[in-house]
Amino acid sequence: MREEATAFVPGHVTGFFSAHPDEDPTKAGSRGAGLTLTDGVEVSVEPATESTVVLDGTEAEVEPVTTVLETLDATARVEAAADLPIGAGFGVSGAMALGTALAANRVFERKLSANELVTIAHGAEVQAGTGLGDVVAQAHGGVPIRLEPGGPQDNKLDAIPSRARVEYVSFGELSTADVLSGDTEALTAAGKEALARVVEEPTLLSFMYASRLFARDAGLLTERVTETIAEVSEAGGQASMAMLGETVFALGTGLSDAGYEPSVCATHPAGAVLK
Amino acid sequence: MREEATAFVPGHVTGFFSAHPDEDPTKAGSRGAGLTLTDGVEVSVEPATESTVVLDGTEAEVEPVTTVLETLDATARVEAAADLPIGAGFGVSGAMALGTALAANRVFERKLSANELVTIAHGAEVQAGTGLGDVVAQAHGGVPIRLEPGGPQDNKLDAIPSRARVEYVSFGELSTADVLSGDTEALTAAGKEALARVVEEPTLLSFMYASRLFARDAGLLTERVTETIAEVSEAGGQASMAMLGETVFALGTGLSDAGYEPSVCATHPAGAVLK
Repeated sequence: MREEATAFVPGHVTGFFSAHPDEDPTKAGSRGAGLTLTDGVEVSVEPATESTVVLDGTEAEVEPVTTVLETLDATARVEAAADLPIGAGFGVSGAMALGTALAANRVFERKLSANELVTIAHGAEVQAGTGLGDVVAQAHGGVPIRLEPGGPQDNKLDAIPSRARVEYVSFGELSTADVLSGDTEALTAAGKEALARVVEEPTLLSFMYASRLFARDAGLLTERVTETIAEVSEAGGQASMAMLGETVFALGTGLSDAGYEPSVCATHPAGAVLK
Repeated sequence: MREEATAFVPGHVTGFFSAHPDEDPTKAGSRGAGLTLTDGVEVSVEPATESTVVLDGTEAEVEPVTTVLETLDATARVEAAADLPIGAGFGVSGAMALGTALAANRVFERKLSANELVTIAHGAEVQAGTGLGDVVAQAHGGVPIRLEPGGPQDNKLDAIPSRARVEYVSFGELSTADVLSGDTEALTAAGKEALARVVEEPTLLSFMYASRLFARDAGLLTERVTETIAEVSEAGGQASMAMLGETVFALGTGLSDAGYEPSVCATHPAGAVLK
Protein backbone atom coordinates (compact mmCIF):
# COMPACT_ATOMS: atom_id res chain seq x y z
CA MET A 1 0.00 0.00 0.00
CA ARG A 2 1.28 3.46 -0.88
CA GLU A 3 1.09 6.42 1.48
CA GLU A 4 -0.84 8.73 -0.80
CA ALA A 5 -1.76 9.38 -4.41
CA THR A 6 -3.11 12.49 -6.11
CA ALA A 7 -5.11 12.88 -9.31
CA PHE A 8 -6.05 15.99 -11.26
CA VAL A 9 -9.43 15.97 -12.96
CA PRO A 10 -10.40 18.78 -15.34
CA GLY A 11 -13.63 20.69 -14.79
CA HIS A 12 -16.38 20.13 -17.36
CA VAL A 13 -19.12 22.49 -18.48
CA THR A 14 -21.89 20.77 -20.42
CA GLY A 15 -23.37 22.94 -23.17
CA PHE A 16 -26.32 20.64 -23.91
CA PHE A 17 -27.46 17.13 -23.09
CA SER A 18 -30.27 14.63 -23.16
CA ALA A 19 -30.89 12.29 -20.23
CA HIS A 20 -30.88 8.52 -20.72
CA PRO A 21 -32.00 6.61 -17.64
CA ASP A 22 -31.29 2.91 -17.22
CA GLU A 23 -31.70 0.56 -14.27
CA ASP A 24 -27.97 -0.14 -14.45
CA PRO A 25 -26.18 3.09 -13.45
CA THR A 26 -23.13 2.14 -15.53
CA LYS A 27 -25.36 2.08 -18.64
CA ALA A 28 -27.42 5.16 -17.76
CA GLY A 29 -26.05 8.58 -18.66
CA SER A 30 -26.45 11.33 -21.17
CA ARG A 31 -25.70 12.32 -24.73
CA GLY A 32 -24.36 15.82 -25.24
CA ALA A 33 -21.24 17.92 -25.50
CA GLY A 34 -19.14 20.20 -23.34
CA LEU A 35 -15.76 21.73 -22.63
CA THR A 36 -13.27 20.17 -20.22
CA LEU A 37 -11.35 22.89 -18.42
CA THR A 38 -7.82 23.50 -17.15
CA ASP A 39 -9.53 24.68 -13.95
CA GLY A 40 -10.32 21.43 -12.19
CA VAL A 41 -10.12 19.45 -8.99
CA GLU A 42 -7.07 17.94 -7.33
CA VAL A 43 -7.96 14.86 -5.32
CA SER A 44 -5.62 13.18 -2.81
CA VAL A 45 -6.30 9.82 -1.22
CA GLU A 46 -4.52 8.38 1.80
CA PRO A 47 -5.38 5.29 3.85
CA ALA A 48 -7.19 6.03 7.12
CA THR A 49 -8.99 4.17 9.87
CA GLU A 50 -12.31 5.63 8.73
CA SER A 51 -13.34 7.28 5.47
CA THR A 52 -13.71 11.05 5.38
CA VAL A 53 -14.05 13.54 2.56
CA VAL A 54 -12.69 17.07 2.79
CA LEU A 55 -13.53 19.61 0.09
CA ASP A 56 -11.59 22.89 0.12
CA GLY A 57 -10.72 22.41 3.78
CA THR A 58 -14.21 21.53 5.02
CA GLU A 59 -15.50 18.04 5.77
CA ALA A 60 -18.27 17.18 3.33
CA GLU A 61 -20.72 14.42 2.45
CA VAL A 62 -20.10 13.59 -1.20
CA GLU A 63 -22.14 10.49 -1.97
CA PRO A 64 -20.37 9.47 -5.23
CA VAL A 65 -17.00 9.59 -3.47
CA THR A 66 -18.25 7.38 -0.65
CA THR A 67 -19.63 4.91 -3.21
CA VAL A 68 -16.32 4.82 -5.11
CA LEU A 69 -14.38 4.13 -1.90
CA GLU A 70 -16.79 1.33 -0.95
CA THR A 71 -16.61 -0.21 -4.42
CA LEU A 72 -12.81 -0.24 -4.24
CA ASP A 73 -12.95 -1.59 -0.67
CA ALA A 74 -10.86 1.39 0.42
CA THR A 75 -11.02 3.19 3.76
CA ALA A 76 -9.36 6.53 3.17
CA ARG A 77 -9.18 10.22 3.79
CA VAL A 78 -10.03 12.01 0.52
CA GLU A 79 -8.95 15.61 0.22
CA ALA A 80 -10.14 17.66 -2.74
CA ALA A 81 -9.13 21.17 -3.77
CA ALA A 82 -11.36 22.72 -6.42
CA ASP A 83 -10.35 25.64 -8.66
CA LEU A 84 -14.05 25.91 -9.47
CA PRO A 85 -17.33 27.01 -7.89
CA ILE A 86 -19.22 24.07 -6.33
CA GLY A 87 -22.69 23.07 -7.57
CA ALA A 88 -22.56 25.57 -10.40
CA GLY A 89 -22.24 23.24 -13.40
CA PHE A 90 -18.51 22.48 -13.48
CA GLY A 91 -18.68 18.76 -12.71
CA VAL A 92 -16.97 19.04 -9.33
CA SER A 93 -18.77 15.97 -7.93
CA GLY A 94 -17.84 13.93 -11.02
CA ALA A 95 -14.26 15.12 -10.73
CA MET A 96 -14.14 14.07 -7.08
CA ALA A 97 -15.55 10.64 -7.88
CA LEU A 98 -13.14 10.07 -10.78
CA GLY A 99 -10.13 11.48 -8.95
CA THR A 100 -10.91 9.28 -5.96
CA ALA A 101 -11.16 6.19 -8.19
CA LEU A 102 -7.80 6.88 -9.88
CA ALA A 103 -5.95 7.76 -6.70
CA ALA A 104 -7.48 4.98 -4.55
CA ASN A 105 -6.69 2.40 -7.24
CA ARG A 106 -3.07 3.47 -6.97
CA VAL A 107 -2.83 3.75 -3.19
CA PHE A 108 -4.58 0.45 -2.52
CA GLU A 109 -3.03 -1.28 -5.56
CA ARG A 110 -6.39 -2.48 -6.85
CA LYS A 111 -4.95 -3.10 -10.36
CA LEU A 112 -8.04 -1.95 -12.24
CA SER A 113 -7.90 -0.56 -15.77
CA ALA A 114 -8.75 3.02 -16.73
CA ASN A 115 -12.12 1.94 -18.18
CA GLU A 116 -12.99 0.02 -15.02
CA LEU A 117 -12.20 3.04 -12.84
CA VAL A 118 -14.20 5.39 -15.06
CA THR A 119 -17.12 2.92 -15.00
CA ILE A 120 -17.07 2.86 -11.19
CA ALA A 121 -16.95 6.66 -10.91
CA HIS A 122 -19.62 7.17 -13.58
CA GLY A 123 -21.94 4.63 -11.96
CA ALA A 124 -21.47 6.22 -8.53
CA GLU A 125 -22.28 9.69 -9.93
CA VAL A 126 -25.41 8.47 -11.75
CA GLN A 127 -26.59 6.58 -8.69
CA ALA A 128 -26.22 9.70 -6.54
CA GLY A 129 -28.15 11.76 -9.10
CA THR A 130 -25.38 14.37 -9.18
CA GLY A 131 -24.52 14.03 -12.88
CA LEU A 132 -24.95 11.95 -16.02
CA GLY A 133 -22.07 12.72 -18.35
CA ASP A 134 -19.33 14.64 -16.55
CA VAL A 135 -17.23 11.65 -15.53
CA VAL A 136 -16.79 10.17 -19.02
CA ALA A 137 -16.10 13.63 -20.43
CA GLN A 138 -13.54 14.35 -17.69
CA ALA A 139 -11.82 11.04 -18.38
CA HIS A 140 -11.55 12.01 -22.06
CA GLY A 141 -10.44 15.65 -21.95
CA GLY A 142 -10.63 18.18 -24.78
CA VAL A 143 -14.08 19.02 -26.11
CA PRO A 144 -15.88 15.69 -25.93
CA ILE A 145 -19.09 14.84 -27.78
CA ARG A 146 -21.06 12.11 -26.00
CA LEU A 147 -22.71 10.24 -28.88
CA GLU A 148 -24.00 7.34 -26.79
CA PRO A 149 -24.71 7.37 -23.03
CA GLY A 150 -23.18 5.31 -20.26
CA GLY A 151 -19.80 4.28 -18.95
CA PRO A 152 -16.87 3.35 -21.22
CA GLN A 153 -18.14 -0.21 -21.80
CA ASP A 154 -21.31 1.16 -23.41
CA ASN A 155 -20.84 4.73 -24.55
CA LYS A 156 -19.42 6.21 -27.72
CA LEU A 157 -17.41 9.42 -27.71
CA ASP A 158 -16.14 11.75 -30.38
CA ALA A 159 -14.64 15.22 -29.95
CA ILE A 160 -14.36 18.65 -31.51
CA PRO A 161 -10.69 18.86 -32.56
CA SER A 162 -10.12 22.39 -31.24
CA ARG A 163 -8.90 24.20 -28.18
CA ALA A 164 -9.88 27.59 -26.80
CA ARG A 165 -9.46 30.08 -24.02
CA VAL A 166 -12.56 29.91 -21.82
CA GLU A 167 -14.01 32.54 -19.50
CA TYR A 168 -16.77 32.02 -16.97
CA VAL A 169 -18.84 33.80 -14.31
CA SER A 170 -21.03 32.03 -11.82
CA PHE A 171 -24.08 33.56 -10.11
CA GLY A 172 -25.01 30.54 -8.03
CA GLU A 173 -26.11 26.94 -7.82
CA LEU A 174 -28.76 24.91 -9.54
CA SER A 175 -29.54 21.45 -8.22
CA THR A 176 -28.71 18.83 -10.86
CA ALA A 177 -30.75 16.30 -8.88
CA ASP A 178 -33.85 18.57 -8.93
CA VAL A 179 -33.69 19.21 -12.67
CA LEU A 180 -32.99 15.57 -13.53
CA SER A 181 -35.79 14.29 -11.29
CA GLY A 182 -38.31 16.70 -12.91
CA ASP A 183 -39.93 16.47 -16.35
CA THR A 184 -37.05 16.14 -18.80
CA GLU A 185 -39.06 15.73 -22.03
CA ALA A 186 -38.47 19.21 -23.51
CA LEU A 187 -34.88 19.03 -22.38
CA THR A 188 -34.30 15.68 -24.09
CA ALA A 189 -35.87 16.86 -27.36
CA ALA A 190 -33.73 20.02 -27.33
CA GLY A 191 -30.64 17.96 -26.45
CA LYS A 192 -31.12 15.62 -29.41
CA GLU A 193 -31.49 18.54 -31.81
CA ALA A 194 -28.35 20.19 -30.45
CA LEU A 195 -26.36 16.97 -30.76
CA ALA A 196 -27.45 16.49 -34.39
CA ARG A 197 -26.23 20.01 -35.13
CA VAL A 198 -22.80 19.45 -33.57
CA VAL A 199 -22.35 16.04 -35.20
CA GLU A 200 -23.14 17.67 -38.55
CA GLU A 201 -20.55 20.40 -37.90
CA PRO A 202 -18.14 19.58 -35.06
CA THR A 203 -16.71 23.07 -34.49
CA LEU A 204 -16.60 25.28 -31.40
CA LEU A 205 -18.86 27.87 -33.00
CA SER A 206 -21.54 25.35 -33.82
CA PHE A 207 -21.20 23.93 -30.28
CA MET A 208 -21.82 27.38 -28.77
CA TYR A 209 -24.77 28.02 -31.09
CA ALA A 210 -26.33 24.62 -30.33
CA SER A 211 -25.78 25.20 -26.59
CA ARG A 212 -27.58 28.55 -26.65
CA LEU A 213 -30.58 27.12 -28.49
CA PHE A 214 -30.65 24.20 -26.05
CA ALA A 215 -30.59 26.43 -22.96
CA ARG A 216 -33.53 28.41 -24.35
CA ASP A 217 -35.61 25.45 -25.59
CA ALA A 218 -35.03 23.34 -22.48
CA GLY A 219 -36.39 26.20 -20.36
CA LEU A 220 -33.37 26.31 -18.06
CA LEU A 221 -32.30 29.94 -18.52
CA THR A 222 -32.51 32.27 -15.55
CA GLU A 223 -32.86 36.01 -15.96
CA ARG A 224 -29.29 36.82 -15.01
CA VAL A 225 -27.92 34.17 -17.35
CA THR A 226 -30.11 35.37 -20.25
CA GLU A 227 -28.92 38.92 -19.70
CA THR A 228 -25.24 37.99 -19.55
CA ILE A 229 -25.37 35.83 -22.68
CA ALA A 230 -27.08 38.71 -24.50
CA GLU A 231 -24.39 41.15 -23.36
CA VAL A 232 -21.63 38.86 -24.63
CA SER A 233 -23.44 38.54 -27.98
CA GLU A 234 -23.77 42.33 -28.22
CA ALA A 235 -20.02 42.63 -27.64
CA GLY A 236 -19.49 40.23 -30.57
CA GLY A 237 -18.73 37.13 -28.47
CA GLN A 238 -20.04 33.60 -27.93
CA ALA A 239 -21.47 32.54 -24.58
CA SER A 240 -23.88 29.99 -23.18
CA MET A 241 -25.06 28.50 -19.90
CA ALA A 242 -23.30 25.68 -18.02
CA MET A 243 -25.59 22.69 -17.48
CA LEU A 244 -26.52 22.70 -14.63
CA GLY A 245 -25.58 25.86 -12.79
CA GLU A 246 -26.33 29.54 -12.84
CA THR A 247 -23.11 29.97 -14.76
CA VAL A 248 -22.21 31.59 -18.08
CA PHE A 249 -19.17 30.43 -20.04
CA ALA A 250 -17.71 32.13 -23.10
CA LEU A 251 -15.02 31.46 -25.68
CA GLY A 252 -11.96 33.70 -25.90
CA THR A 253 -12.50 37.10 -24.27
CA GLY A 254 -16.30 37.07 -24.61
CA LEU A 255 -17.12 37.97 -21.01
CA SER A 256 -14.23 40.41 -20.56
CA ASP A 257 -15.29 42.22 -23.73
CA ALA A 258 -18.79 42.54 -22.28
CA GLY A 259 -17.40 44.24 -19.16
CA TYR A 260 -17.33 41.29 -16.75
CA GLU A 261 -14.38 40.20 -14.63
CA PRO A 262 -14.56 36.49 -15.34
CA SER A 263 -12.44 33.58 -14.24
CA VAL A 264 -10.14 32.60 -17.10
CA CYS A 265 -8.97 29.13 -18.10
CA ALA A 266 -8.81 27.03 -21.27
CA THR A 267 -9.98 23.73 -22.64
CA HIS A 268 -7.93 20.93 -21.07
CA PRO A 269 -6.05 18.83 -23.63
CA ALA A 270 -5.99 15.66 -21.51
CA GLY A 271 -8.40 13.63 -19.44
CA ALA A 272 -7.97 13.01 -15.73
CA VAL A 273 -4.41 12.09 -14.73
CA LEU A 274 -2.51 10.80 -11.74
CA LYS A 275 0.09 13.30 -10.61
CA MET B 1 -8.47 29.56 -44.76
CA ARG B 2 -5.94 30.07 -41.98
CA GLU B 3 -2.27 30.75 -42.60
CA GLU B 4 -0.88 27.85 -40.59
CA ALA B 5 -1.72 25.38 -37.85
CA THR B 6 0.52 23.19 -35.70
CA ALA B 7 -0.21 19.95 -33.87
CA PHE B 8 1.86 18.03 -31.35
CA VAL B 9 1.59 14.26 -31.48
CA PRO B 10 3.23 12.13 -28.76
CA GLY B 11 5.62 9.36 -29.73
CA HIS B 12 4.43 5.79 -29.14
CA VAL B 13 6.43 2.68 -28.37
CA THR B 14 4.48 -0.53 -28.79
CA GLY B 15 5.44 -3.23 -26.31
CA PHE B 16 3.50 -6.03 -28.00
CA PHE B 17 0.87 -6.43 -30.69
CA SER B 18 -1.01 -8.80 -32.94
CA ALA B 19 -1.73 -7.87 -36.57
CA HIS B 20 -5.34 -7.81 -37.84
CA PRO B 21 -5.54 -7.32 -41.59
CA ASP B 22 -8.77 -6.24 -43.29
CA GLU B 23 -9.55 -5.13 -46.82
CA ASP B 24 -10.79 -1.82 -45.41
CA PRO B 25 -7.72 -0.01 -44.00
CA THR B 26 -9.90 1.86 -41.48
CA LYS B 27 -10.98 -1.50 -40.00
CA ALA B 28 -7.54 -3.18 -40.20
CA GLY B 29 -5.09 -2.59 -37.38
CA SER B 30 -3.64 -4.27 -34.35
CA ARG B 31 -4.38 -5.26 -30.79
CA GLY B 32 -1.66 -4.54 -28.26
CA ALA B 33 -0.35 -2.01 -25.78
CA GLY B 34 2.32 0.65 -25.58
CA LEU B 35 3.50 3.88 -24.01
CA THR B 36 2.78 7.29 -25.52
CA LEU B 37 5.72 9.62 -24.92
CA THR B 38 6.29 13.28 -24.12
CA ASP B 39 8.95 13.10 -26.85
CA GLY B 40 6.93 13.43 -30.02
CA VAL B 41 6.49 15.16 -33.35
CA GLU B 42 5.42 18.72 -34.02
CA VAL B 43 3.67 19.04 -37.36
CA SER B 44 2.90 22.36 -39.07
CA VAL B 45 0.69 22.70 -42.11
CA GLU B 46 0.43 25.73 -44.36
CA PRO B 47 -1.33 26.11 -47.71
CA ALA B 48 1.00 25.89 -50.72
CA THR B 49 0.77 25.64 -54.49
CA GLU B 50 2.05 22.08 -54.38
CA SER B 51 2.27 19.59 -51.51
CA THR B 52 5.66 18.95 -49.92
CA VAL B 53 6.72 17.21 -46.73
CA VAL B 54 9.78 18.29 -44.77
CA LEU B 55 11.01 16.15 -41.87
CA ASP B 56 13.66 17.66 -39.58
CA GLY B 57 14.68 20.09 -42.31
CA THR B 58 14.92 17.60 -45.17
CA GLU B 59 12.33 17.03 -47.88
CA ALA B 60 10.91 13.53 -47.52
CA GLU B 61 8.40 11.15 -49.10
CA VAL B 62 6.02 10.14 -46.32
CA GLU B 63 3.20 8.19 -47.97
CA PRO B 64 0.65 8.39 -45.13
CA VAL B 65 1.04 12.18 -45.02
CA THR B 66 0.45 12.47 -48.76
CA THR B 67 -2.65 10.27 -48.43
CA VAL B 68 -4.02 12.39 -45.57
CA LEU B 69 -3.54 15.60 -47.57
CA GLU B 70 -5.27 14.07 -50.60
CA THR B 71 -8.17 12.80 -48.48
CA LEU B 72 -8.67 16.28 -47.00
CA ASP B 73 -8.33 17.84 -50.47
CA ALA B 74 -5.49 19.98 -49.11
CA THR B 75 -2.44 21.19 -50.99
CA ALA B 76 0.06 22.16 -48.34
CA ARG B 77 3.60 22.35 -47.09
CA VAL B 78 3.92 20.00 -44.12
CA GLU B 79 6.85 20.58 -41.79
CA ALA B 80 7.58 18.05 -39.06
CA ALA B 81 10.13 18.25 -36.25
CA ALA B 82 10.70 14.97 -34.42
CA ASP B 83 12.19 14.67 -30.94
CA LEU B 84 12.61 10.98 -31.75
CA PRO B 85 14.74 8.68 -33.90
CA ILE B 86 13.06 7.89 -37.24
CA GLY B 87 12.14 4.32 -38.22
CA ALA B 88 13.14 3.01 -34.81
CA GLY B 89 9.74 2.11 -33.35
CA PHE B 90 8.47 5.45 -32.04
CA GLY B 91 5.52 5.91 -34.36
CA VAL B 92 6.97 8.93 -36.19
CA SER B 93 5.08 8.16 -39.42
CA GLY B 94 1.81 7.74 -37.52
CA ALA B 95 2.48 10.99 -35.66
CA MET B 96 3.10 12.79 -38.95
CA ALA B 97 -0.12 11.42 -40.46
CA LEU B 98 -2.21 12.33 -37.41
CA GLY B 99 -0.59 15.74 -36.93
CA THR B 100 -1.17 16.53 -40.61
CA ALA B 101 -4.84 15.52 -40.32
CA LEU B 102 -5.43 17.72 -37.25
CA ALA B 103 -3.54 20.73 -38.57
CA ALA B 104 -4.88 20.52 -42.15
CA ASN B 105 -8.47 20.22 -40.85
CA ARG B 106 -7.91 23.48 -39.04
CA VAL B 107 -6.08 25.36 -41.79
CA PHE B 108 -8.48 24.33 -44.54
CA GLU B 109 -11.55 24.49 -42.25
CA ARG B 110 -12.71 20.99 -43.20
CA LYS B 111 -14.94 20.75 -40.09
CA LEU B 112 -14.29 17.08 -39.43
CA SER B 113 -14.57 15.53 -35.98
CA ALA B 114 -11.67 14.10 -33.98
CA ASN B 115 -12.77 10.53 -34.76
CA GLU B 116 -13.02 11.30 -38.48
CA LEU B 117 -9.49 12.76 -38.52
CA VAL B 118 -8.06 9.81 -36.58
CA THR B 119 -9.82 7.41 -38.97
CA ILE B 120 -8.26 9.15 -41.98
CA ALA B 121 -4.76 9.12 -40.45
CA HIS B 122 -5.08 5.50 -39.27
CA GLY B 123 -6.32 4.32 -42.66
CA ALA B 124 -3.49 6.18 -44.44
CA GLU B 125 -0.89 4.59 -42.15
CA VAL B 126 -2.30 1.07 -42.59
CA GLN B 127 -2.52 1.51 -46.36
CA ALA B 128 1.13 2.58 -46.49
CA GLY B 129 2.15 -0.43 -44.37
CA THR B 130 4.05 1.81 -41.98
CA GLY B 131 2.05 0.95 -38.85
CA LEU B 132 -1.10 -0.67 -37.48
CA GLY B 133 -1.81 0.80 -34.09
CA ASP B 134 0.29 3.91 -33.48
CA VAL B 135 -2.26 6.46 -34.70
CA VAL B 136 -5.13 5.39 -32.45
CA ALA B 137 -2.73 5.14 -29.50
CA GLN B 138 -1.28 8.59 -30.24
CA ALA B 139 -4.78 10.06 -30.43
CA HIS B 140 -5.54 8.59 -26.98
CA GLY B 141 -2.39 9.38 -24.98
CA GLY B 142 -1.31 7.76 -21.71
CA VAL B 143 -0.64 4.03 -21.76
CA PRO B 144 -3.29 2.73 -24.16
CA ILE B 145 -4.38 -0.88 -24.45
CA ARG B 146 -5.78 -1.66 -27.89
CA LEU B 147 -8.45 -4.28 -27.17
CA GLU B 148 -9.96 -4.29 -30.66
CA PRO B 149 -8.22 -3.26 -33.90
CA GLY B 150 -9.08 -0.52 -36.35
CA GLY B 151 -9.92 3.17 -36.39
CA PRO B 152 -12.14 4.82 -33.78
CA GLN B 153 -15.39 3.68 -35.43
CA ASP B 154 -14.41 0.04 -34.93
CA ASN B 155 -11.77 -0.28 -32.23
CA LYS B 156 -12.02 -0.54 -28.49
CA LEU B 157 -9.43 1.02 -26.20
CA ASP B 158 -8.66 0.79 -22.53
CA ALA B 159 -5.59 2.09 -20.68
CA ILE B 160 -3.25 1.40 -17.80
CA PRO B 161 -4.05 4.19 -15.31
CA SER B 162 -0.39 5.05 -14.54
CA ARG B 163 2.36 7.37 -15.60
CA ALA B 164 6.11 6.85 -15.60
CA ARG B 165 9.45 8.31 -16.48
CA VAL B 166 10.69 6.53 -19.62
CA GLU B 167 14.24 6.07 -20.90
CA TYR B 168 15.26 4.78 -24.30
CA VAL B 169 18.28 4.00 -26.47
CA SER B 170 18.08 3.27 -30.17
CA PHE B 171 20.61 1.19 -32.14
CA GLY B 172 18.94 1.52 -35.51
CA GLU B 173 15.98 0.88 -37.75
CA LEU B 174 13.80 -2.12 -38.42
CA SER B 175 11.38 -1.99 -41.34
CA THR B 176 7.81 -2.23 -40.07
CA ALA B 177 6.67 -3.00 -43.63
CA ASP B 178 9.13 -5.94 -43.91
CA VAL B 179 8.07 -7.50 -40.61
CA LEU B 180 4.37 -7.00 -41.27
CA SER B 181 4.58 -8.43 -44.80
CA GLY B 182 6.37 -11.57 -43.52
CA ASP B 183 4.96 -14.54 -41.61
CA THR B 184 3.17 -13.04 -38.62
CA GLU B 185 1.71 -16.22 -37.10
CA ALA B 186 4.12 -16.61 -34.14
CA LEU B 187 3.91 -12.89 -33.57
CA THR B 188 0.12 -12.90 -33.48
CA ALA B 189 -0.01 -15.82 -31.05
CA ALA B 190 2.51 -14.12 -28.75
CA GLY B 191 0.63 -10.84 -29.04
CA LYS B 192 -2.67 -12.40 -27.97
CA GLU B 193 -1.04 -14.02 -24.94
CA ALA B 194 0.58 -10.73 -23.92
CA LEU B 195 -2.72 -8.87 -24.26
CA ALA B 196 -4.55 -11.42 -22.10
CA ARG B 197 -1.90 -10.92 -19.42
CA VAL B 198 -2.21 -7.12 -19.42
CA VAL B 199 -6.03 -7.18 -19.48
CA GLU B 200 -5.88 -9.49 -16.45
CA GLU B 201 -3.55 -7.10 -14.65
CA PRO B 202 -3.40 -3.61 -16.21
CA THR B 203 -0.25 -2.34 -14.48
CA LEU B 204 3.04 -1.02 -15.90
CA LEU B 205 4.99 -3.94 -14.43
CA SER B 206 2.75 -6.51 -16.05
CA PHE B 207 2.97 -4.53 -19.33
CA MET B 208 6.78 -4.66 -19.24
CA TYR B 209 6.78 -8.36 -18.40
CA ALA B 210 4.29 -9.18 -21.17
CA SER B 211 6.33 -7.09 -23.62
CA ARG B 212 9.57 -8.94 -22.86
CA LEU B 213 7.91 -12.34 -23.32
CA PHE B 214 6.36 -11.10 -26.57
CA ALA B 215 9.66 -9.83 -27.99
CA ARG B 216 11.25 -13.20 -27.28
CA ASP B 217 8.39 -15.40 -28.50
CA ALA B 218 7.75 -13.36 -31.65
CA GLY B 219 11.41 -13.83 -32.62
CA LEU B 220 12.05 -10.12 -33.08
CA LEU B 221 14.96 -9.63 -30.65
CA THR B 222 18.34 -8.64 -32.04
CA GLU B 223 21.56 -9.42 -30.20
CA ARG B 224 22.16 -5.87 -29.05
CA VAL B 225 18.59 -5.50 -27.82
CA THR B 226 18.74 -8.82 -25.93
CA GLU B 227 21.98 -7.76 -24.27
CA THR B 228 20.68 -4.35 -23.23
CA ILE B 229 17.42 -5.72 -21.79
CA ALA B 230 19.48 -8.26 -19.79
CA GLU B 231 21.76 -5.51 -18.47
CA VAL B 232 18.77 -3.47 -17.31
CA SER B 233 17.31 -6.55 -15.59
CA GLU B 234 20.62 -7.21 -13.85
CA ALA B 235 20.61 -3.64 -12.56
CA GLY B 236 17.15 -4.30 -11.11
CA GLY B 237 15.17 -2.46 -13.82
CA GLN B 238 12.45 -3.13 -16.36
CA ALA B 239 13.14 -2.85 -20.10
CA SER B 240 11.80 -4.19 -23.35
CA MET B 241 12.04 -3.67 -27.12
CA ALA B 242 10.07 -1.07 -29.10
CA MET B 243 7.96 -2.67 -31.82
CA LEU B 244 9.33 -2.23 -34.44
CA GLY B 245 12.81 -0.78 -34.09
CA GLU B 246 16.18 -1.76 -32.75
CA THR B 247 15.27 0.24 -29.66
CA VAL B 248 15.18 -0.55 -25.95
CA PHE B 249 12.87 1.38 -23.61
CA ALA B 250 12.86 1.20 -19.82
CA LEU B 251 10.77 2.50 -16.96
CA GLY B 252 12.24 4.96 -14.46
CA THR B 253 16.03 4.97 -14.47
CA GLY B 254 16.41 1.43 -15.84
CA LEU B 255 18.88 2.24 -18.63
CA SER B 256 20.82 4.85 -16.65
CA ASP B 257 21.24 2.36 -13.80
CA ALA B 258 22.66 -0.14 -16.30
CA GLY B 259 25.30 2.37 -17.39
CA TYR B 260 23.68 3.72 -20.57
CA GLU B 261 23.21 7.37 -21.48
CA PRO B 262 19.62 7.15 -22.64
CA SER B 263 17.17 9.76 -23.90
CA VAL B 264 14.77 10.60 -21.09
CA CYS B 265 11.08 11.43 -21.37
CA ALA B 266 7.81 10.32 -19.75
CA THR B 267 4.45 8.90 -20.64
CA HIS B 268 2.32 11.63 -22.26
CA PRO B 269 -0.90 12.32 -20.37
CA ALA B 270 -2.82 13.53 -23.42
CA GLY B 271 -3.41 12.45 -26.97
CA ALA B 272 -2.44 14.53 -30.00
CA VAL B 273 -3.34 18.22 -29.65
CA LEU B 274 -3.49 21.34 -31.77
CA LYS B 275 -1.15 23.99 -30.43
